[in-house]
Amino acid sequence: MIQKPYLLFTGDALNTRSTKTAFGLRDWVPEAVIGQWRLPEGRVDLGLPMLDPVAAHAAGARSMVIGIAPFGGALPETWLPGLVAALEAGLDLVSGLHTRLSAIPALAEAASRLGRTLHDVRHSDRTFPAGTGEKRSGKRLLAVGTDCALGKKYTALALARGLAARGHAADFRATGQTGIMIAGEGVAIDAVVADFIAGAAETLSPAAAPEHWDVIEGQGALFHPAYAGVTLGLLHGSQPDALVLCHEPRRSHIEDLPWAVIPPLGEAMRRYLDAARVTNPAARFVAISLNTSRLDEAAAHAAAADVTAEHGLPVFDPLRFGLDGALDHIEAVYGAAQ
Amino acid sequence: MIQKPYLLFTGDALNTRSTKTAFGLRDWVPEAVIGQWRLPEGRVDLGLPMLDPVAAHAAGARSMVIGIAPFGGALPETWLPGLVAALEAGLDLVSGLHTRLSAIPALAEAASRLGRTLHDVRHSDRTFPAGTGEKRSGKRLLAVGTDCALGKKYTALALARGLAARGHAADFRATGQTGIMIAGEGVAIDAVVADFIAGAAETLSPAAAPEHWDVIEGQGALFHPAYAGVTLGLLHGSQPDALVLCHEPRRSHIEDLPWAVIPPLGEAMRRYLDAARVTNPAARFVAISLNTSRLDEAAAHAAAADVTAEHGLPVFDPLRFGLDGALDHIEAVYGAAQ
Repeated sequence: MIQKPYLLFTGDALNTRSTKTAFGLRDWVPEAVIGQWRLPEGRVDLGLPMLDPVAAHAAGARSMVIGIAPFGGALPETWLPGLVAALEAGLDLVSGLHTRLSAIPALAEAASRLGRTLHDVRHSDRTFPAGTGEKRSGKRLLAVGTDCALGKKYTALALARGLAARGHAADFRATGQTGIMIAGEGVAIDAVVADFIAGAAETLSPAAAPEHWDVIEGQGALFHPAYAGVTLGLLHGSQPDALVLCHEPRRSHIEDLPWAVIPPLGEAMRRYLDAARVTNPAARFVAISLNTSRLDEAAAHAAAADVTAEHGLPVFDPLRFGLDGALDHIEAVYGAAQ
Repeated sequence: MIQKPYLLFTGDALNTRSTKTAFGLRDWVPEAVIGQWRLPEGRVDLGLPMLDPVAAHAAGARSMVIGIAPFGGALPETWLPGLVAALEAGLDLVSGLHTRLSAIPALAEAASRLGRTLHDVRHSDRTFPAGTGEKRSGKRLLAVGTDCALGKKYTALALARGLAARGHAADFRATGQTGIMIAGEGVAIDAVVADFIAGAAETLSPAAAPEHWDVIEGQGALFHPAYAGVTLGLLHGSQPDALVLCHEPRRSHIEDLPWAVIPPLGEAMRRYLDAARVTNPAARFVAISLNTSRLDEAAAHAAAADVTAEHGLPVFDPLRFGLDGALDHIEAVYGAAQ
């Protein structure tokens, strides 16, 4: 297991878009985050104490998390001295990159020499069985989306915490690197061998008590030209009873792919249900989660009201408003805590 | 590249179901197949000369293909003496199993000592980019199905050869281990890391001349609880203009998973088109391929007539009848060879 608390490293990042791992940890496990560190050319500020590895270790940190996704997924050479410095200061390293830290000789050598651990949370030596689609006991909710990077993880985290606060047995199930760092466990579903996507998802939310909720972080989008295979395998393996659609109101096409148009929400939900019912005929949407971060307060509420009026579902923004309405509806459909 | 011709090994297989690799090679590259070999307890007969590795090598064989998929995907210990004997007789080994031959010490040692090559066609050291969905030039046809193991590979092979025979520039694009052994190249799409399924499919059928056809072997089914992620990523990355639906008339549920019901063909095609149009809005079905192997001649023709009447598409069985009607329709839609 990964040793907490964390020092968050944002490298040479110039903007917040590539550092969602760092922001995710700051927002969702603040008790496990002790400070931030960056390279001299970096510009991202998490609003945390700025500590170098030695100071962070002295303050109690046990691991440094690479909280930035570099363009292309490979780790730049210019980060290496900083990463080695963290190992020398007594910190383990935690990475969600496709490149394995353990495959970089300078890091492997330093970790071995110093007795530190390199956590490559995107990778796993675990193997998974093929999926079967056989019904498992327990209740499952999956956050799905109209694109990547618009709030599926935060939606699942907020709902898992909200259900737990109302007395339900509920577990957040992480499927991406940030989620795994937050939860301390999970499966990086996009790194699994293609044949075993659904099987890995089945393993992630095993049979549970009938009243137990697994609240599962979704990945990608059914309409994403690159990642829909991951999305569909995760959907089938999760066999969700309840679905929550995550959307960013001003996004009309998949980010960076202007030819990949996002369908209207009703059409999106129809297609998710078509797919979900392969492994759970009772699947239904219970709420819509809007990422209103680019809207002012009035516009955010207006957007939520419009979506509720059109689709007859409670609408919330997990960072802003409406969670209780969504939880009320979930309890109305599936029952309150016993 | 894999050295031909082949000796086909069927191990201890008792029935034809687990030996479709061997039958596929016998049927589709008979000129590259010199004989068969099996263990004493094996019962499958390919109707080829029975040759042990020494006799096969003397007759010209250069590789022995493991033409059997063992239950669970792992290679039984009891096969090892026979595989080592093949290496000692001068044959390379070709495997489509999940288990790598090169990971089995006895085989790795013998191959190294004897200068033989171990081909693990399901695996690849190639890495692939993420998909983009950007439109590529050239025409593409993808065989999709209502389940695994009902004729997608044979359908694509028959159409590729039929188009070529009519003067079209056409390439069969292999996505599974048997297809790769037949074609001599391809990508085992189910062994790719999940994030790169669509990207691998994009790589497999690169931009080509406008009149060129890539005829792509499909995998799995959109309704398969284990493998739909592979199916969808391959569909998106292939961005097919033309789709052919492959079906086995008496199959009502996914093989071995009785709870996974196959939808009616019209519904199946609607869902494939929903998905295909993410990367090619012009995608359409051009034919239906029926696996009529379990029907007598009259029943096979009656089934084909029923399906044509209901769906208004030419119907064929690539091993039996109707290929010309399907090719006529494809040429009516997309044009005859120039």
